[in-house]
Amino acid sequence: MRATITSTANARIRTIRGLRRLKERRASGLALVEGIRQVAEALQLDADVRCLLFAPKQLTSEFALELVDQADTRGVEVLPVTPKVMATLSGRERAVGLCAVVGQRWTVLDDPDFGAADVVALAAVRDPGNLGTILRSADGAGLDDFVLLDDSTDPYHPAALRASMGSVFSRRLTRATFEDFAAWAGRRGLRLIGASDRGSIDYRHVDYGEHTALLFGTERSGLSEAQLAACDEIVALPMRGRADSLNLAAAASVLLYDLAARRDT
Amino acid sequence: MRATITSTANARIRTIRGLRRLKERRASGLALVEGIRQVAEALQLDADVRCLLFAPKQLTSEFALELVDQADTRGVEVLPVTPKVMATLSGRERAVGLCAVVGQRWTVLDDPDFGAADVVALAAVRDPGNLGTILRSADGAGLDDFVLLDDSTDPYHPAALRASMGSVFSRRLTRATFEDFAAWAGRRGLRLIGASDRGSIDYRHVDYGEHTALLFGTERSGLSEAQLAACDEIVALPMRGRADSLNLAAAASVLLYDLAARRDT
Repeated sequence: MRATITSTANARIRTIRGLRRLKERRASGLALVEGIRQVAEALQLDADVRCLLFAPKQLTSEFALELVDQADTRGVEVLPVTPKVMATLSGRERAVGLCAVVGQRWTVLDDPDFGAADVVALAAVRDPGNLGTILRSADGAGLDDFVLLDDSTDPYHPAALRASMGSVFSRRLTRATFEDFAAWAGRRGLRLIGASDRGSIDYRHVDYGEHTALLFGTERSGLSEAQLAACDEIVALPMRGRADSLNLAAAASVLLYDLAARRDT
Repeated sequence: MRATITSTANARIRTIRGLRRLKERRASGLALVEGIRQVAEALQLDADVRCLLFAPKQLTSEFALELVDQADTRGVEVLPVTPKVMATLSGRERAVGLCAVVGQRWTVLDDPDFGAADVVALAAVRDPGNLGTILRSADGAGLDDFVLLDDSTDPYHPAALRASMGSVFSRRLTRATFEDFAAWAGRRGLRLIGASDRGSIDYRHVDYGEHTALLFGTERSGLSEAQLAACDEIVALPMRGRADSLNLAAAASVLLYDLAARRDT
């Protein structure tokens, strides 16, 4: 194991700290995962863990120390740092003494495995917490493939990683423009189903076809006219009370579980 | 209309500012709603709006100015304040020039209307955003009655109000200890169904009976042993991928919509 890094100005530490910014994550293709639970998820789910940082003085949990050993045994670089250095890496009020640098994994639409089953497409989801929650619900529903459209937020944003509870590491993700995605879905024979509070079909009665691409709009304005026009069907959730719509992640969870339940039977 | 309040130390303003704290909300039975959308929801849903505060210099939206007129016409007290005073009331980075003081509405378990249909019970939900999202999903599912158990977070917390999108004003809410609630549910003839990742029944196969009280645990640890033991049945969502569980509000949304769908048929 290396010597403990004590300087917050250390070049390596500065680079890793930069991963809190989208620009640096994009440029490097890396991300920073924080805390014992997230690091454990990354290791368990075979994420591309490049480097583990831990503050020996801070980290007392036996489980966490085992994670460090495990990573070391696997050949992952392990860097001991001081609690002060760790604090400059963390976005949390209380740093927990453990974080990891992971390589982002992205696939492409043309990957022959991608889209062999149902696909979830998100048109410019804004809130990283919502994105993480949707990834987690899709994981529960057994949906593997995600297309993040246009300027959707970053699944490797710290809040998305936190909300996804590891699901970002186990989903297959790609980015695409809506146009490329719609053309691909057509070629792939996927039935394009949009979810919108302006939908005319109750979700319980929609025909998902053999394979579906289920498309969700932004939190604020849903799907655009052009997106709605490209869909084979537009489904809505019945609103039985006074509310106009559900939270995006809540609506997605209901629909993804309904889709999964129908595929089961 | 009164004279514009210009002092951030004004006694009235200090009292209203205090409503950002749970203690003051509890003691006064009041809450502060912020921003044009939330104030509009409060007025539209006939919340007990006691007073509107607005910054004439800041508020330019015609829709918002109409809300102020509307409240004035209804006899709601309207207080003009300076943007500086408004900024001290707001938890947001940019105050939007409009907020309102509303009276909290609570019912009691013994209200004969309460629990005439299905009921949602939350055991110590911690995150006010989750609570607000669940209230909004329950609204969509047509479920009116909520029991907040033990030390559940406050539905009038600013983040809960924001996430609920007005649903807190249209639901019937009560607080109770788990013991009182379970005894009441028994007397009321409600079938007590717990939701837990340790549940043995797939939610799609549970018998909700004529009327149900659907019970959710905390974000971190779910339902306690005693709570599980008190349930008539314990349901789980199938987890088809690598995730162990869903986000609480996501899981609740799936179950509440499933319950509503079954009641429709």
